[in-house]
Amino acid sequence: MTDFTATKAMFHLPEGVVYLDGNSLGPLPKAAPERMQQVMCEEWGEMLITGWNKAGWMAQPAAVGDRIARLIGAEPGHVVMGDTLSIKVYQALAAALTLRPERKVILSDSGNFPTDLYMAEGLIGGLDKGHELRVVAPEEVEQAITEEVAVLMLTQVDYRTGRMHDMARLTRKAHENGVLAIWDLAHSAGAVPVDLAGCGADFAVGCTYKFLNGGPGAPAFIYVAPRHADMARPALSGWLGHAAPFAFEQAYRAGDGIARMRVGTPPVLALASLETALDIWDGVDMAALRARSQALSERFIAAVEATCPMLELASPRDADRRGSQVSFRFAHGYEAMQACIAHGVIGDFRAPDIMRFGITPLYIDEADIDRAAAVIARIMEQRLWDDAAYRARAAVT
Amino acid sequence: MTDFTATKAMFHLPEGVVYLDGNSLGPLPKAAPERMQQVMCEEWGEMLITGWNKAGWMAQPAAVGDRIARLIGAEPGHVVMGDTLSIKVYQALAAALTLRPERKVILSDSGNFPTDLYMAEGLIGGLDKGHELRVVAPEEVEQAITEEVAVLMLTQVDYRTGRMHDMARLTRKAHENGVLAIWDLAHSAGAVPVDLAGCGADFAVGCTYKFLNGGPGAPAFIYVAPRHADMARPALSGWLGHAAPFAFEQAYRAGDGIARMRVGTPPVLALASLETALDIWDGVDMAALRARSQALSERFIAAVEATCPMLELASPRDADRRGSQVSFRFAHGYEAMQACIAHGVIGDFRAPDIMRFGITPLYIDEADIDRAAAVIARIMEQRLWDDAAYRARAAVT
Repeated sequence: MTDFTATKAMFHLPEGVVYLDGNSLGPLPKAAPERMQQVMCEEWGEMLITGWNKAGWMAQPAAVGDRIARLIGAEPGHVVMGDTLSIKVYQALAAALTLRPERKVILSDSGNFPTDLYMAEGLIGGLDKGHELRVVAPEEVEQAITEEVAVLMLTQVDYRTGRMHDMARLTRKAHENGVLAIWDLAHSAGAVPVDLAGCGADFAVGCTYKFLNGGPGAPAFIYVAPRHADMARPALSGWLGHAAPFAFEQAYRAGDGIARMRVGTPPVLALASLETALDIWDGVDMAALRARSQALSERFIAAVEATCPMLELASPRDADRRGSQVSFRFAHGYEAMQACIAHGVIGDFRAPDIMRFGITPLYIDEADIDRAAAVIARIMEQRLWDDAAYRARAAVT
Repeated sequence: MTDFTATKAMFHLPEGVVYLDGNSLGPLPKAAPERMQQVMCEEWGEMLITGWNKAGWMAQPAAVGDRIARLIGAEPGHVVMGDTLSIKVYQALAAALTLRPERKVILSDSGNFPTDLYMAEGLIGGLDKGHELRVVAPEEVEQAITEEVAVLMLTQVDYRTGRMHDMARLTRKAHENGVLAIWDLAHSAGAVPVDLAGCGADFAVGCTYKFLNGGPGAPAFIYVAPRHADMARPALSGWLGHAAPFAFEQAYRAGDGIARMRVGTPPVLALASLETALDIWDGVDMAALRARSQALSERFIAAVEATCPMLELASPRDADRRGSQVSFRFAHGYEAMQACIAHGVIGDFRAPDIMRFGITPLYIDEADIDRAAAVIARIMEQRLWDDAAYRARAAVT
């Protein structure tokens, strides 16, 4: 049984703030600054170059990857850290395309985060072999999976609405049609239970600064299914993915398995921060997290809908089809979110009209939800989002 | 006039150590841990998501890039930070090839750091358009620059020997032949004066954890000459290189100039550490640094050669053809370097037989050089590198 009071106590949350934006940038684990001091002063400062071995820096990308593997249902030894999510998307897609050389269609959806589509565009532009990036509406994905498709590339949870794809079902349909599936877990890892191995996912990528709380710019991860890990020649063939990086050979020989997805020097300091966040995750049961995320989300939706008729639920009403965020549409959403933030409830806004609230049970509890809902109700009722009204009111208080 | 006593005082150096490996990983700037605490606690901890604007995180890659621009003679506004050096090599080469579509040869040399060659191999393997990676000996580069060549891709300073290419001369010859020049400054930035703009370099890339002292895994930089910056379509077309990243458009539109070389979310914590290192660099005159680097190197070579006839200078004897390191060949170099490290003189070893010593005037002075030379002399004279002799001696002291 996960103790969410205990996990909440492990984060620094600014006084007077309800933080509903952990789906964009998670808060600071209290232990992170001290761990960082230790890595900087005792490891970098004292060990200098010998830290690569003595402090285990060189092994960090695989060791941290294994801790993330548990959270996403990956086989141990098949996740590695490094770079950014965009780079990892490129690696996964490039590798997947080499496994389906005879097919030319990459299928994605309009709910994908734009950088995934951009990276695909850049990749196929460079390949110049007649590939097509086919982008359909999220609800049309399933029927668009045909034998023409080489790779299905989806972000499981929509960054705007929280709408969640059925990974098992779509991966199954993909495989039935000889299609490889790449899952972007940016809004899944640490948000919902993920079972990559169980679903038979071929590749997965994700970032660690959102629900995982690794810090601003924390490194990304990549998973390659064991059956593919020794097959695909890496497009980004950097020295740390070489079979013998310190032999300094002139020609590239890909390392074994997931190691070949390493590229350059690991981001040691960023990984240190992430490690303290993962210390918290080590005690978390993902099923318990999911139950609590759904309960808090339902409570939030009910409270907001009871008091704010002008806010229209943009997330699926069915909790099982939603990730760990709740979004509402409102024509003046941008201004309304500014007012929320000014009143201590931090969510964010995504164009054109989406107010987005992350529901992160590690540090959000019922009292936070109730307070956030009350603040939103007051802002909407008193039209605090109306700039003119807001300024007038601010002038008298 | 740069005060090198003052700069030395700004670094933490372990008691009893002479650190001659700053060409691999620079030491900890004393101010870095406190700055990191501030960024973690006051920015990440208190500002949370608003740090992207309020703390300037989003602008960091360009702001830090400008500080590096001064050290490498780049025009302001044409250097940006991010990713690793391997990734930046890929970006530069991919962009350069699109500017010379009719040519198929990438010219490099066997003194290049392997990852540059590996990344080129990966890129042209993906392009599959008949490109050739032509690797010649360093001394043959100049005559190999012909009109057949699309891109000249070199690391200016050889990571093993410190042999330095004449950037101005080779770039001139490249341009006379319609060839674009990419310079890897891994062992140049912060080591020797570099004048990218004056040499007319087309692209440059480099890392910041060596002579620049940014910390283990500190981010890389990329420079694109202003005349090319708006031309090349980026291969790694990530959202932060988009003209309007937060419009979340479905199709990629490259940002202006160097901005398009950004890919994913900036490594905020790593950049914070690097910033404290650059605070030190801000006061350093590169000509003064070079003069001091050469004086210290000459002193080191003279002392070692006077006492250790079995060590053969692997670096160029002409100080003007050397970067900021001194290397010796020795058949038992690996064991000898282990003995050096055990006696407090940290350099490193590169196969098959190179003992490598970085000469970094920011924190290495005459006393360090003399002490290092004395230790090396004793190790060689007493054959402390001989495992058996070393163990026997250790047993009695």
